[in-house]
This record gives sequence, C-alpha cells and structure tokens, in this order.
Amino acid sequence: MTKPGDKVLDYNFSDRCKNLEGNAIREIFKLISQPDIISFAGGMPASQALPKDEMRVILNSLLASDIATSLLQYGATEGYVPFLKEGAKYVEKVGIKIKDLSEILAISGGQQGIDLTFKAFINKGDRILVEAPTYVAVPHIAKTYEAELIGVQSDDDGINLEDLEKMILEHNPKLLYIVPTFSNPTGRTIDVEKRKKIAEITAKHNVIVLEDNPYGELRYSGECLPSIKSFDNKGNVIYLTSFSKTISPGMRVGLAVASEKVIRKLTIGKQATDVHTTTLFQAATTEFLKQGLLKEILDKNIPLYKVKLDTMLKALAMYFPSSAKWTHPEGGLFIWVTFPKTIDVAGEIFREAINRKVAYVAGNSSFVDGSGRNCLRLNFSNATETDIMKGIKILGDLLKEKLEGVC
Amino acid sequence: MTKPGDKVLDYNFSDRCKNLEGNAIREIFKLISQPDIISFAGGMPASQALPKDEMRVILNSLLASDIATSLLQYGATEGYVPFLKEGAKYVEKVGIKIKDLSEILAISGGQQGIDLTFKAFINKGDRILVEAPTYVAVPHIAKTYEAELIGVQSDDDGINLEDLEKMILEHNPKLLYIVPTFSNPTGRTIDVEKRKKIAEITAKHNVIVLEDNPYGELRYSGECLPSIKSFDNKGNVIYLTSFSKTISPGMRVGLAVASEKVIRKLTIGKQATDVHTTTLFQAATTEFLKQGLLKEILDKNIPLYKVKLDTMLKALAMYFPSSAKWTHPEGGLFIWVTFPKTIDVAGEIFREAINRKVAYVAGNSSFVDGSGRNCLRLNFSNATETDIMKGIKILGDLLKEKLEGVC
Repeated sequence: MTKPGDKVLDYNFSDRCKNLEGNAIREIFKLISQPDIISFAGGMPASQALPKDEMRVILNSLLASDIATSLLQYGATEGYVPFLKEGAKYVEKVGIKIKDLSEILAISGGQQGIDLTFKAFINKGDRILVEAPTYVAVPHIAKTYEAELIGVQSDDDGINLEDLEKMILEHNPKLLYIVPTFSNPTGRTIDVEKRKKIAEITAKHNVIVLEDNPYGELRYSGECLPSIKSFDNKGNVIYLTSFSKTISPGMRVGLAVASEKVIRKLTIGKQATDVHTTTLFQAATTEFLKQGLLKEILDKNIPLYKVKLDTMLKALAMYFPSSAKWTHPEGGLFIWVTFPKTIDVAGEIFREAINRKVAYVAGNSSFVDGSGRNCLRLNFSNATETDIMKGIKILGDLLKEKLEGVC
Repeated sequence: MTKPGDKVLDYNFSDRCKNLEGNAIREIFKLISQPDIISFAGGMPASQALPKDEMRVILNSLLASDIATSLLQYGATEGYVPFLKEGAKYVEKVGIKIKDLSEILAISGGQQGIDLTFKAFINKGDRILVEAPTYVAVPHIAKTYEAELIGVQSDDDGINLEDLEKMILEHNPKLLYIVPTFSNPTGRTIDVEKRKKIAEITAKHNVIVLEDNPYGELRYSGECLPSIKSFDNKGNVIYLTSFSKTISPGMRVGLAVASEKVIRKLTIGKQATDVHTTTLFQAATTEFLKQGLLKEILDKNIPLYKVKLDTMLKALAMYFPSSAKWTHPEGGLFIWVTFPKTIDVAGEIFREAINRKVAYVAGNSSFVDGSGRNCLRLNFSNATETDIMKGIKILGDLLKEKLEGVC
C-alpha cells in the first residue's frame, strides 16, 4: 500500500526472527519447482503414490454423510475423536499402548509436533541434542526458540550411545531429537537394543526424547521395530508420526503421543496457533485407517519405492567416484553420501549441479556446527527411474571432474 | 506406557508454558459440546450456513482434475499461487491494493496470523496494545511469547484515540491488535475517520498494527468500510482475514497481507511450524472465490444471520433486566452485554447458567486486567431462533433472580 516517496518503517523484528533465514529445504523447494530439474532434494513421496482416487471417494462420501456439517465446523484442538481412536490403534504397530485418548493429539503434519514440543519445553538458551547429522528443519525450528543445538556423533548403526551420555553430562540438555527409523538425512535405522538403551539413558538423566517417525511405514526390507516410546517407563518420550509420506503431505495430518501432562501442554500450545488440524482430513485419514486402505496403498507403493531405491544404489555404484561412500537404507526416502573431507559439495559443486539441472541437499544444512560440506542427501522417491539414472550420472560426472581438479 | 509403580518424570516445562492455562473459549468449547446445551458461547458460523454440497462438488472436481496429485503433494509455505492471486483480488473490497504476491501469505486460519505476527515481532517483555475488551485468544497467544498486554479504552464507537496515543507514549508498545469491523467481543465497528487516525497515530509512533478482519463479510446493515491497512503509507499495518466464518472453519484457511519484508518473516516463521496450509483447501477456497460461490453463499446466509441477530436483540429487550445494556452490531457474530459493576456474571451466575443448560462467555476473559466480570459476550449465529428466545429467557430469569438477591 506504500507509495513512492513514503518512508517505510525500519522493522524491529524479534530477536528470534531478526537474523533467521529460511529453512534450507523450503528454499530449495522453490528452486526445484522449475519443471526441467531432476530433483533429489526434497523429501516428497512419489506423486504417482498419492491416492487421489481413494481420497476423492472418501471426501465425497464424508461430505455426503450426515456428519458432513460437523466436519466443516470448528473442531476440538485435541483432535477428532474417531481419528484419535484409530491413531491409538495405529501406533500399536510400534509397540505403543495408549491407555486414554488424553495421551494422543492430532497435529498439522509431524513437523508441527516438533514446534509444539519446543514451545512446551524450551527456554532461550536451553540445549537440545540432535544426531549429527539431523533433520534440517530442526535447527530452523530451534532457532525460533533461541535454543542451543548440540550434535551427538552418529555411526553406521545410528547415534553413538557413549557420545550421547557424554553430551548429556556435559551439556545438561532438556531434549534429544531423534529419527530412529530410516533417519532423515542418513536413511539409517537404530536396532532394538540401542532403542532400549536410549530410553534408559535419557530416563536416567531426565532428558525428554522427541522420537520422530515419519518414514517407518516405508520399509522395503527387514522387520518393523518397536519404537523408543515403547520402552518408555518414565513418561519422558514424545512420539511423533505423520501421514504425509503415506497418504498425502498436502493434507497436513500427523499424531503426537506422550503422557497426559505433556499432551495437555502441547494442546494448549496448539490452541495458540492453528486452533485445530483440519477436521475433514482427520476424518479422511480415519477412513484410510479403518477401511484398511492405508495398508492397500502401502502394498502397492512399497515395490515402487524399492525399485527407485535399488535404481539409485545401482546408479551410485556405476557413476559416483570410488572415493564416495553411501548408506544402504532398508526404507524411507533418503541415501546419504559421504566424500573425503577435501570435497566441498555445498558450494560451487552445488551451483554447478543446479546449472546442469540436478538438485540435492548439501550435508552442511544437517549439521549444527557447519560441518558436513563433504556430504549430501539424496532423495530417491520422487524421480522416475530414468531420471534417477540420468541425474546420478550427471552428478557423478560433475564430481569426477572436480575430483580430478583437486588431484 | 508407564506402569504402576514407575516414577514419572517431573516435567520441566518452558517458562512460557509452565503456568499457561487453556484458552477460555477452547475450554468452553469442550463444555458446550454436550448436545442439550443452548450455546451463546462459541464464535461458530451457523451449521446450516456451511456449504457442504458446494464443498463436495468442488473437492470432487479438483481431485478428478489433472492437478489432483499436486494438490495432495507438499506445497510452498508462501501458499498456492492461484489462491494468493484470488486473495489479492478479494482484499480489494476493503481498499487493499497488492502490488506483488510477495505481500500476501496463506495461513492456517486467521488465528495463525496472530501467532506468526507475534513470533516475528515480540520479545519477552515487549508490550502489545489491545482494545479493552479484546478477542480472548490474544492474551493466550501473547502469553506464549511472554508479552505484556496493555488495554486501551474502548467506547461505543470503538477504540478511544486519545487513550491509544496516551498508551503508546506511556508503554512504547511494539504492536496494536485490533478488530475494527464487528469486533470480537463487542460487535462494534470503527468508522472511516477513526480508521485513518489509527493508521496515522501508529505510523507516527512506529507501532505495528495487526488488523484482524474475520467477520467483515457478515454485514447485515450499513456499508462495507475500507480497512485500516488501506490507509497504511508506512508499511506498519498487517491485515488478516479468514474464510472460517464464510466458508468453513474446519478447513483452516486464511490470509495475511503486509509489506514484503514482513510477509517474508511470517513465512519463515510458518516454515517452522505447519510447513504450509493444506493445499486442497487453498484450491477449494480459490474456486469459491473464482466461481462467485462465496458471494452466493453470503447472499443466502446473511438474511439467516440477520434474523438471528434481530431475534436475540428482541429477546434481550424482552427478558433481560433493565439495568443491562447491550451493543447493536451491524454484522458479525456477537452482542456484548454490560451490567452494573456489582453484578458478577463470571462466577456463580455462570455456573448456574451452565446448570440451566445455557452457555455464554463471561467478559473477564476479554480484559487483560481481570475486569469485565459484569460483562458477557453472546454469540447469536449458532443457535436456532427458538433456542435464542428460550436461552435468553433462561439467562434473563437467572439474572433477575440474582439482581433481586443483591438488591
């Protein structure tokens, strides 16, 4: 509304926002929306895996039913009761037994659960432990609470327990954020024994665990594992899951499970932001669960994803320089590639990759200390097999050129 | 997951959340979900006004179209571009001219815009001016940012400009929150001259104005007025609107309009919470706007609401004690009733009203200094005319009993 010549206000933004840049992935999201880019950057489910016909039938049926009006009306912040009930059954798969619906909350995508947890627990200057590397949104969200993030060493089998206990003793953190199954960004899965130990160590030191499980259903080999939450005897674990990777990210529906006291605080925090998660999509998700449609979709989509994963692993073996190492995940959406420390894939190589129309996420966004410029995260779920072969070859060629350059 | 005998953690919640109680309205929402209660408490549109058939047809058509998949996929935090374009046209009605889509953001209901604005501007201890009385969610949201709220006197024609300038000089606030059209809770509307003055005074003192307009479309008499934002020459006004009262609250879709710099900060804050507003409902709202359906719905619903308002005004005149005064709004959802200072409608009378199966919101939740126990907010949009007559009679009888009691 300002006109030429008007003196515009010099905004006095809050300390938390003053120097806050956009979340790296979200910014890349805009970049890669160019149609001719082969993107290994996002964390999106395959477009062909999204159940548009099932969703159309379900929404149509819900809006033709006698509860249609209530699904368009304001709902309780706690969530739509039939959804919470189905959600309680759904998490049994990872060993979580919910005694009462006061232990579960509908959230607007899994990520909102991270925000609400930090809101409930984090004061300015409080410390949060994260795996090194961690999910890139977490440092961004943590900055909005002016928290200090501390990286815990992550090995081939996931978080290093000795380093975890050491960091707890050294930094007295309030919280540990962890993705134990098909981690973002590494694709690694933590085994059962280690899950028990994480529950034990954190309980002993009164550290809250925020266990994020958005990818667990996308398993292409191996067995489903019990959650860290299933070993929680002290009420210190908060479990998050999401239907973004299995039904639809666009609908923004997830679940948080925790003790009643914690869920109450998350709920009060949620009252103060989006009031409640869209009721119609909570109801639609309920139908996907109740009618067994989620299982049907997964049965159909998992073979698709497995082919994509195998294709990328094959392409990496064919085209990437021999000095590169990468993870071999049993599920999820990501492969993590590590180069010798001398290679920087976050700067010129990244820009050149974009010039050659291939996108990835450089590893440094996943480390809180700025390291990881020799690593990259590759998403394999959203490109066609042809594009995976083509894109990995382009990247491999580029990397080999640069490697020769530094030799 | 805890078992009997386990020692549950003594949670160390954040300062902002430690003593935070639930938002008064949200708590009442649970209470009034008993089916036999006549509720004048919420701020819900009439259930019969919700366009379930139109929504069904639109969603069905969107999910059968060739953009169906993209509507279920992740979207940009900034919003769905066709929605932002329609939104830009939509706000022209209140005199807002958007030069670029970087000045508009899709939000998950109008209330999220309050949260995002506070996140972008408010440090602990910062002061926010609100009308006395104000929308009850605002003190709740402000507490999650540890802000200090200062009430500005509100007269029959809305906020008192002398008191506004006095409070600005006295308290050096960062922000003024105001609902200039059919205010929540009073139903009052501020005239054009005063809107201009508010823009001038706040610009002069570098105070951000958060102008919230969720009810503006629900006008039953009088003329549509230009927004405060339309008089903003300095980029200090943020305008919020919502489709909750006109299309559906359950879908959680609203809009924020501000200068590009401010929208960028709100966007970065939104990245850190729900990532983006549900794409399918942004697309559905686009269709409601583009096809002229919103206008059709309003043409159909406004006469319904007008009858409800007139019925409540009539019932108040018939049944309420003569010492009560109330507002005569030209639109919106609320009537505000004021009793002599000796009457306390927030305590025993409130509980007795609930016993007699009638609910309202006591005025004290709308004042930051705990005053207003002699006031109540009545919502007229969600009860039938019969129930309005019946409920107001019950309340009137109760109040008369109590008034005789104190005489």
